[in-house]
Amino acid sequence: MSTYTAPIRDMLFVMTELAGLDTVAALPGFEEVPDLAEAVLEEAGKLAGEVLAPLNSDTGHTGAQWTADGVIAAEGFKDAYWQFVEGGWNGLSCPAEFEGQGLPELLGTATHEMWQAANMSFALCPMLTMGAIEAIHHHASDELKAAYLPKMVSGEWTGTMNLTEPQAGSDLSAVRSKAVPEGDHYLVSGQKIFITWGDHDMTENTIHLVLARLPDAPEGVKGISLFVCPKFLLDADGAPAQRNTVQCVSIEHKLGIHGSPTCVLAFEDAVGYLVGEPNKGLGYMFTMMNEARLKVGLQGLAISDRAYQLALSYAKERVQGRPANAKAGDRTAIIGHADIRRMLLTMKSQTEAMRAIAYTTASYMDIARHSEDAATAAAAQARVDLMIPIVKAWSTEVGQEVTSLGVQVHGGMGYVEETGAAQFLRDARITTIYEGTTAIQANDFVGRKVAHDGGAALGVLLNEMKATLEELAAAPGDDLAAIRASLTEGVRALEELGQWVVANFKPNMVDVLGEAVNAVMLAGYVCGGWQLARAALVANAKLAAGEDPAFYEAKVLTARFYAEQLLPKASSLLTTVKTGARTMMALTEEQF
Amino acid sequence: MSTYTAPIRDMLFVMTELAGLDTVAALPGFEEVPDLAEAVLEEAGKLAGEVLAPLNSDTGHTGAQWTADGVIAAEGFKDAYWQFVEGGWNGLSCPAEFEGQGLPELLGTATHEMWQAANMSFALCPMLTMGAIEAIHHHASDELKAAYLPKMVSGEWTGTMNLTEPQAGSDLSAVRSKAVPEGDHYLVSGQKIFITWGDHDMTENTIHLVLARLPDAPEGVKGISLFVCPKFLLDADGAPAQRNTVQCVSIEHKLGIHGSPTCVLAFEDAVGYLVGEPNKGLGYMFTMMNEARLKVGLQGLAISDRAYQLALSYAKERVQGRPANAKAGDRTAIIGHADIRRMLLTMKSQTEAMRAIAYTTASYMDIARHSEDAATAAAAQARVDLMIPIVKAWSTEVGQEVTSLGVQVHGGMGYVEETGAAQFLRDARITTIYEGTTAIQANDFVGRKVAHDGGAALGVLLNEMKATLEELAAAPGDDLAAIRASLTEGVRALEELGQWVVANFKPNMVDVLGEAVNAVMLAGYVCGGWQLARAALVANAKLAAGEDPAFYEAKVLTARFYAEQLLPKASSLLTTVKTGARTMMALTEEQF
Repeated sequence: MSTYTAPIRDMLFVMTELAGLDTVAALPGFEEVPDLAEAVLEEAGKLAGEVLAPLNSDTGHTGAQWTADGVIAAEGFKDAYWQFVEGGWNGLSCPAEFEGQGLPELLGTATHEMWQAANMSFALCPMLTMGAIEAIHHHASDELKAAYLPKMVSGEWTGTMNLTEPQAGSDLSAVRSKAVPEGDHYLVSGQKIFITWGDHDMTENTIHLVLARLPDAPEGVKGISLFVCPKFLLDADGAPAQRNTVQCVSIEHKLGIHGSPTCVLAFEDAVGYLVGEPNKGLGYMFTMMNEARLKVGLQGLAISDRAYQLALSYAKERVQGRPANAKAGDRTAIIGHADIRRMLLTMKSQTEAMRAIAYTTASYMDIARHSEDAATAAAAQARVDLMIPIVKAWSTEVGQEVTSLGVQVHGGMGYVEETGAAQFLRDARITTIYEGTTAIQANDFVGRKVAHDGGAALGVLLNEMKATLEELAAAPGDDLAAIRASLTEGVRALEELGQWVVANFKPNMVDVLGEAVNAVMLAGYVCGGWQLARAALVANAKLAAGEDPAFYEAKVLTARFYAEQLLPKASSLLTTVKTGARTMMALTEEQF
Repeated sequence: MSTYTAPIRDMLFVMTELAGLDTVAALPGFEEVPDLAEAVLEEAGKLAGEVLAPLNSDTGHTGAQWTADGVIAAEGFKDAYWQFVEGGWNGLSCPAEFEGQGLPELLGTATHEMWQAANMSFALCPMLTMGAIEAIHHHASDELKAAYLPKMVSGEWTGTMNLTEPQAGSDLSAVRSKAVPEGDHYLVSGQKIFITWGDHDMTENTIHLVLARLPDAPEGVKGISLFVCPKFLLDADGAPAQRNTVQCVSIEHKLGIHGSPTCVLAFEDAVGYLVGEPNKGLGYMFTMMNEARLKVGLQGLAISDRAYQLALSYAKERVQGRPANAKAGDRTAIIGHADIRRMLLTMKSQTEAMRAIAYTTASYMDIARHSEDAATAAAAQARVDLMIPIVKAWSTEVGQEVTSLGVQVHGGMGYVEETGAAQFLRDARITTIYEGTTAIQANDFVGRKVAHDGGAALGVLLNEMKATLEELAAAPGDDLAAIRASLTEGVRALEELGQWVVANFKPNMVDVLGEAVNAVMLAGYVCGGWQLARAALVANAKLAAGEDPAFYEAKVLTARFYAEQLLPKASSLLTTVKTGARTMMALTEEQF
């Protein structure tokens, strides 16, 4: 069974040196955050490593099970969940007015990385609850908020998001579930699929957020409303009482995340309460999308780190072969072989890049929400909007590579389930699909985030990258020079990409959409390289000041590895993008 | 449950137009092959599609099961196996003197693609038998050959390869199993792991080929001998009689290939017969390596084609969203979306490239074995030796991408096991590991295949590629011009790679080994692009002659897609390779 040790030193490095913890702490209400941060991470790390991680293995633990009376949570999850709730972790970054701890998203993001790394199946439950909390918090009436939020923020009740139907996946315009008014509420009917943690026995109530259509609603996306349908209706005292007519009729047999029940829910005249105004449900969903997508991007990061930890530990233990050029003498642990190091550094450097991208984005979320200067807040929001599809698409796609390398480092043992490496690959595989597939993120990136503002937000980012290039030019040594050379190419590629997208989005939309995934991956590689270059600059200054050479040298070398071994992909992706989608569209269906 | 339709038209196209079926047919004994080929493929396609493919699904079929009395083969496999044996498929490309059909490797390769695509777990059984046949055929005494080969060639008995031990995986120098002489035989003892089809109930005997050390053997690779240890010893009439003391003590719980029992075998003074001379066992294993690695490369191809067929069928059926730019009107099957086409063409074009690389290599195997001209045979063998690590490494690594895209095309349904897409990803994951990991292939490529002859064999290949570039220059049209532009860059990258490997292998071996995987992947992308360019040239000529425009236009467009969207990876891999492994080796173990 694999263990998990939260990388607290690295998390604090990223928060402090790259993601502007000081700036976040200067926002109103966050003054104490720098003093709290390390202690919070230490405590979260204990829960993650000691309680959640040991329950993660598919081997030796029973996953979620369907019964006619409802879903039974995976072995050990219920106890762990209540430790999680009692520790106050569920509402860490929720507002204090609803019993949350009111801490910044930056700190919440680091704890979420831990939950996801320790046990992705488990962590999906509070993640979905958070989405439901946001929907109610931002859009529901004060009455609904008062009735549901405190228990959801504490974690005593969990939440779900009911969007998908068999004919309506990426395309929610096709939602068919119906809601018929009856007195002060509605009767909701329809079948929802792929409902994560849609039913379970860990808590006494589960609050479903459900997209459905009113009888007179217009067709398409403009006729979808949002409802709260609790599993148990509340009595006059606000306690769960009568069972609502929503049933889990089956759970999916999935490739991974076996501890997370993925439910088919049947609503049959279930009592539901309208959230906000009619026909605005899809818009309400979009308001919480940034956070949900950031969290799935974090899953790509988290499971990559977990896979790296396991592979590294195996590479240090497993003895096989001799070092290159040595035909006799002692055999070596496989970490002595260059190719194993290539794989480990590909895992490590990309994981660190993902962390830096995610945490900096979380900081901008805090600034966007809490800055008292409107222009600062607006600029931060623009950065968040630009980065979210990159964080989600790039981190989850690279997570496939990293978890697969984790298997490869183990050789034949990686293919044996008991080792645990294969589970990370299986678990990670969902992350490029749910909460908007990679193509959905990519379309969002090229369309709403780059073309829509004529490349303005991207231009601001590029200027910051160019400032880093200037800092690199002024810094001494081979390593930073090598990083600068590669990053210069990368920034050039990203700039040219932006110009190409802006120029082609309207006249050649199919070309841009056909290349959108390549475009967002290019952006991810460059953003990752930029963040690691920033880390190398910080490390370089620390080294000059004589601080912790082992830690900071590793930061410089990791950044150089990424710059030389991975960042060159950006230029070839640009070559690819610029050819457009003509060949893709030229084949008839029969010619495939 | 997914179906499988053997791509016979494409197979014949590759055999005839790219892999030189005529040249093979001109070899002694193969005169009738061109007349037979289509009929053989049709019959094989029926067995693969109608018998083997329906048994492939993990969902709804019981996999291999261990019992104290031995392994019970997966549901339905025994009946299917006997149809396979009775059809004469097992010995298709085995010599006629041992009851084989004596057909060329080129044709055998196409049938193997079908078995692997239809049911990889099943196909591993005859694949391993073939390895054991080769070992006995080339190295054992006439007496052992007479006793074992006819039943193994017919398939009445199966064979296994017992190499790996817990401490000896990629590094076979660490093998510890012992063989003590006793009369005309030896008593073999030791534990072997990861023995594919190491035990089962489909046939009345299983013939184990086992690596072990004689009591006085030197240490390391020069002290390993090869033994035949049948599950049942033969009586005076050559029939299986007394049970030998080899037991399957467990089978692995694996990520995929659940129909293929992966056994731990315990040999306790098991009767074994020495193959060839003492201490030469590892060398004997190497003589059959090219074929085994070609066949695992074929698995990468086969499972990619299977994943493509399933994804294509889903993409044509699944309706979701509207075409780009259309905000109203009919929804479209997802094959109408540019990104789905990008994914399908990434799958299709790479699958076709893998097929062309594998089949041309198989043709060279036939020439190397059967040409009456020694220089021709030697040149063909040099090409085989160069190509084998590329076929194995590149096809299996790309197979990971293709099967993962197969999941992605399905969206959420891809994560549900019943769909079948996830199984292909799980099954494919072993192919980069067994029969020599990708790093082992890569080291073989840069060391024995490129540096060893100073780049001579690679130079011959590059000259053929340059001749294709000249043909492309003389051909009309945008498509071939675009292919030429990209392939020119690719060939330049491969040439520079070769020079770098030759120049650096001795002075900077760690740099070369650290970049070896990137090097072999670069070679794979360029070889694939070259073969598709050759296909485009043939197709262009056929189109000019007015033949089957739908088929041949698709060939040109597929080649152009690959040239524009995938081949640019070669140049960025070259940039990567040339930086060497310095950053990888610079970190201490503690800095990881």
